Amino acid sequence: MRVTVFGATGYAGAILTDLLVHHPHAELVGLFSSGKDQSSLQQHYPGFHAPTDLLLDCCPPEEAIAASDLIFLALPHGKGMDLVASAHNAGKRVIDLSGDHRLNQPAAYEEWYGFTHPRVDLLKESVYGLPELHSQDIRSAALVANPGCYPTSVLLGLAPLQANCKIKSGSIVIHSMSGVSGAGKSSSFETSFVEVDENLKAYRIFSHQHTPEIEQELEKLSNAPTQVVFSPHLVPVKRGILSTISLMPEQSMTDDELRTLYVDFYKNAPFVKLMEPGILPQTKWVSGSNYCYLGLSSDPRTGAVMVVSAIDNLMKGAAGQAIQNMNLMFGLPETTGLIRSALIP
Amino acid sequence: MRVTVFGATGYAGAILTDLLVHHPHAELVGLFSSGKDQSSLQQHYPGFHAPTDLLLDCCPPEEAIAASDLIFLALPHGKGMDLVASAHNAGKRVIDLSGDHRLNQPAAYEEWYGFTHPRVDLLKESVYGLPELHSQDIRSAALVANPGCYPTSVLLGLAPLQANCKIKSGSIVIHSMSGVSGAGKSSSFETSFVEVDENLKAYRIFSHQHTPEIEQELEKLSNAPTQVVFSPHLVPVKRGILSTISLMPEQSMTDDELRTLYVDFYKNAPFVKLMEPGILPQTKWVSGSNYCYLGLSSDPRTGAVMVVSAIDNLMKGAAGQAIQNMNLMFGLPETTGLIRSALIP
Amino acid sequence: MRVTVFGATGYAGAILTDLLVHHPHAELVGLFSSGKDQSSLQQHYPGFHAPTDLLLDCCPPEEAIAASDLIFLALPHGKGMDLVASAHNAGKRVIDLSGDHRLNQPAAYEEWYGFTHPRVDLLKESVYGLPELHSQDIRSAALVANPGCYPTSVLLGLAPLQANCKIKSGSIVIHSMSGVSGAGKSSSFETSFVEVDENLKAYRIFSHQHTPEIEQELEKLSNAPTQVVFSPHLVPVKRGILSTISLMPEQSMTDDELRTLYVDFYKNAPFVKLMEPGILPQTKWVSGSNYCYLGLSSDPRTGAVMVVSAIDNLMKGAAGQAIQNMNLMFGLPETTGLIRSALIP
Amino acid sequence: MRVTVFGATGYAGAILTDLLVHHPHAELVGLFSSGKDQSSLQQHYPGFHAPTDLLLDCCPPEEAIAASDLIFLALPHGKGMDLVASAHNAGKRVIDLSGDHRLNQPAAYEEWYGFTHPRVDLLKESVYGLPELHSQDIRSAALVANPGCYPTSVLLGLAPLQANCKIKSGSIVIHSMSGVSGAGKSSSFETSFVEVDENLKAYRIFSHQHTPEIEQELEKLSNAPTQVVFSPHLVPVKRGILSTISLMPEQSMTDDELRTLYVDFYKNAPFVKLMEPGILPQTKWVSGSNYCYLGLSSDPRTGAVMVVSAIDNLMKGAAGQAIQNMNLMFGLPETTGLIRSALIP
Repeated sequence: MRVTVFGATGYAGAILTDLLVHHPHAELVGLFSSGKDQSSLQQHYPGFHAPTDLLLDCCPPEEAIAASDLIFLALPHGKGMDLVASAHNAGKRVIDLSGDHRLNQPAAYEEWYGFTHPRVDLLKESVYGLPELHSQDIRSAALVANPGCYPTSVLLGLAPLQANCKIKSGSIVIHSMSGVSGAGKSSSFETSFVEVDENLKAYRIFSHQHTPEIEQELEKLSNAPTQVVFSPHLVPVKRGILSTISLMPEQSMTDDELRTLYVDFYKNAPFVKLMEPGILPQTKWVSGSNYCYLGLSSDPRTGAVMVVSAIDNLMKGAAGQAIQNMNLMFGLPETTGLIRSALIP
Repeated sequence: MRVTVFGATGYAGAILTDLLVHHPHAELVGLFSSGKDQSSLQQHYPGFHAPTDLLLDCCPPEEAIAASDLIFLALPHGKGMDLVASAHNAGKRVIDLSGDHRLNQPAAYEEWYGFTHPRVDLLKESVYGLPELHSQDIRSAALVANPGCYPTSVLLGLAPLQANCKIKSGSIVIHSMSGVSGAGKSSSFETSFVEVDENLKAYRIFSHQHTPEIEQELEKLSNAPTQVVFSPHLVPVKRGILSTISLMPEQSMTDDELRTLYVDFYKNAPFVKLMEPGILPQTKWVSGSNYCYLGLSSDPRTGAVMVVSAIDNLMKGAAGQAIQNMNLMFGLPETTGLIRSALIP
Repeated sequence: MRVTVFGATGYAGAILTDLLVHHPHAELVGLFSSGKDQSSLQQHYPGFHAPTDLLLDCCPPEEAIAASDLIFLALPHGKGMDLVASAHNAGKRVIDLSGDHRLNQPAAYEEWYGFTHPRVDLLKESVYGLPELHSQDIRSAALVANPGCYPTSVLLGLAPLQANCKIKSGSIVIHSMSGVSGAGKSSSFETSFVEVDENLKAYRIFSHQHTPEIEQELEKLSNAPTQVVFSPHLVPVKRGILSTISLMPEQSMTDDELRTLYVDFYKNAPFVKLMEPGILPQTKWVSGSNYCYLGLSSDPRTGAVMVVSAIDNLMKGAAGQAIQNMNLMFGLPETTGLIRSALIP
Repeated sequence: MRVTVFGATGYAGAILTDLLVHHPHAELVGLFSSGKDQSSLQQHYPGFHAPTDLLLDCCPPEEAIAASDLIFLALPHGKGMDLVASAHNAGKRVIDLSGDHRLNQPAAYEEWYGFTHPRVDLLKESVYGLPELHSQDIRSAALVANPGCYPTSVLLGLAPLQANCKIKSGSIVIHSMSGVSGAGKSSSFETSFVEVDENLKAYRIFSHQHTPEIEQELEKLSNAPTQVVFSPHLVPVKRGILSTISLMPEQSMTDDELRTLYVDFYKNAPFVKLMEPGILPQTKWVSGSNYCYLGLSSDPRTGAVMVVSAIDNLMKGAAGQAIQNMNLMFGLPETTGLIRSALIP
């Protein structure tokens, strides 16, 4: 299939492009990044090596769209809506890595993103691109909303419990830590080395825009209203998200029951890996790969359950998942072009 | 007052010694560290500068104890019990930085530390050395158990709520991140640079030995059984603990009510600093200082409250707090020898 | 003495202010930072604690200058020339932490900084504020040019050899590594965490503006033209400079001869510390302190000598050295307000 | 070809194994690591994913050797000599990643490694496996000594000049910085996170065992005695070596002449990449790839030349180079199984 990437010089866009040029069934026909006319991706990422001569912004966008079967958008939130709409109008399939089409309720954009969504029709049509939950819909989707990095780690950690057990209302508490690449490539005082190194902080407690995304998908799983308490943290690593999720099941569970639930739920999920009992995942074990590693623990003393979920925010949390979605949309095995070890060491 | 330090070459012991040699009212008469005979502390920490010629292990321990008014122990758990006992028998006041005398219930040592405590009488007598909660008892204490680093950050974060509000049972969820110096100075594969850098992990979920310490002190505050869910994490910083604490009050609170509670509770606590509304603390703001910085947030949507607490694990979480306790025990202002800015930048 | 600081919210300026408010003989009467009207330094550095109520930009600059005995400027190069001139005209003593008055030859500003210096008279009058070389002149100076961070580490490493031995022409090769705080507080893509972490790079090889500063002072020591080869590097630490200096003496030297030279040269220098034979300094040993640590090694095989020099770029390389200069200018012991251990660990 | 790896759980060995299991023409028949009987490599590196069921130490070593065409040894220096000898005796080709067979002169082992080499015959026979210098000999070699990480970066940086120009005697000064993974997987106080992070240090100045390796290969290039001054440094990154090499050519060179020399010398070297004029390489641009990036600069003022060389110490400096050698030995294109981008970002 022929594909075009918008936003190719951002961190997620560059990794996506790298995955695409090495993908056995993808052919890159357009590569865009505002204001980078006629430069190569290697000029922006000197470590990028690929069998492509394609230059950035080498033709008018609409020309590339017309020549493509699939359009990827790896643009900041709010920047790609017109492109999505015009690609969609042209009958092209689209994977949008931004948050612009993830929430089904227009009101949620007003509450959490602070703007009125211009295309309510596309919100209705878009499919939430978490393959472990929606592979059937993704296969036939015209517009896939690639999930956020935090929601990916949280939803994969919670889905088996949420789908199969009653969880005490108000008991789901999610603490997530993210690497700094999650803030994107723009430079700011807050993401400067001197401010981030040797520092730990929480931010946007109770108000992060990934909260409604998590709740929306949890509600689909349980068919019941669900609220979560979510606290994101910034820590001095480049890549990786670790989410530690605590909850109280209505009925207490043993480690074995918990594990069985997850083994069963993910039996066909090639990128979800359960840790052996007693082992908790580390982000380095998924760094550079598309895996989500899950560790499970139940506590007879308090009745609580904790799930620890580790992903690479730029792979399973962005570019890798986009490729996984592309594979599904075009009838390929989910793992095509995505099997690789994490960075050692 | 004349003081002796055991365990002076560990990270906490070295900082403690540095604080003592610059303290206006302390005179160092003994400095010990197993097997470091006749070396100076500068040989172990070449950046240590102090107006002292005292060498390590320069006299028999009992001699130094006899010449001292106060004995500090900064030894690994279980290694200093005999020394504490003999100093106590000699009528000397003691501050123990280890966990050996923090838990009042002997059974808790069997459950959480895995050994039978040999001196139940000392457990009864020891005072839990968190000045913001127990300053009166500390002033007259013969044996002060200096709190653990995680419990210090958590208890200061929770005390005003726990003492004044009903909190829904089972709703206290604590997520803490610690710098690697918390593991002490010993070298292991798990604390090697290559394993820690660019990595995030949780460990000892549900089973960390600081859990009963937190619950014991919370129960003293509320006079009611209290359980917490506690997940510690290791992150690539040298120093600092950030604890993000979530809970559900029985009655919902506004940000103002929450803040008022804390302002009132800590009105005489020179080392606890509340952030302005909307600001969350960062560990760099307390790195190298004895402060605990607290950020507060309530959520009308879910009814939850979150408290973010930042300390330097080696200062307020260990050596600085020990000096604060010493000041109280000897009738000095709490802040003597402890006023300094955090490391900039 | 009463002092005013311009540029108080930059990294060096904030540390300078912290040192001043804790200095036993300095009284802060003015604190300036463009556009930070009426805020306190703690609003910019929440970890700053000091017994001062002084707000930033609380009065007209000329008023503060008039009320001061000494003016510090911690501004970016080129931004403080008018202030220096007006303070000087008002008969006030000045310590300028920028590079604006370090080079005696106006032509050097054109060649290395790219501008024509407006006040050649001040260049002639200014004293290069490296106390280990120029303490006599500093004591009576009206205008002290506080040395650059790289030159401080390099000159202290080279001075005894340069002053006492013939060094083969062209053989001085200096490789320096600097922490990111050396780039100042401004945010840029190049100093963002994601770009700096896990990365090593050289920059401005052969063209760094500290090169003529190094050569100028070396020439004063040997009374002969001297050229150096200088390569600065950016590495992922916040603070610290390590300079490794290689050279070929005309006559080969033993380790003992080398050491004797340095012991003698620095016998009255309280902030220069020679490592024991076989020990090389590390930047953590000087982090947060005003020391320069030097390690020496000669090689019988090649005839080369290497000197390794470690400083904290913000202390001995900026703010600490400025205080040391102030102490000299006002007849105080050099070490007043500067004795403290490096950060442990 | 069928291959066996000894030392598969070390950092270089694990990466080598990962490259081999994904290599289109290699079949792994043996995997060894002392005392790891019957475990899988994924148990040691949970992020390792590979289409192999091969367990560690699953058969007697001699059996695996007998079944193999090529034996890799990724063992610490001195630990694999018997294995090399027995594989060699069995007529098997060998690539040794240790330093045991790199130096041609037995006396050099006594001087720099401190032991008497037991197999002088193998020293004579072994080929120094730097493909850019010795591809012809490597193709037919029975025993390839895979170069050290520092020498790889230095020799690729110096070879074109050393082979083609007269360099002033004693003027080659090499300053290298290495990531901590270069120290191997063993844990020590010196490589613990708390000691390494926020720290810079030099070590083994004038005495590092890679010095004779560098000089030996330089002398082959110029057919003249050559000495270098070499200072290695440890910096807080996991991977990467940056070498900054300074020298004085007998005849001064322009940037263009310099560049032409390198373009010509490396015209057939797929893994050496020259930076554009004015650009200096960064280690992140080669992290995870087998490339060596070179930046060149000449200085009309001093006459000096500087070369900056960046490699990934575990790829081009170890495992990647071993695969490149294997490709040559078995008649494959050098780049087989090695084309990939550096880690982004």
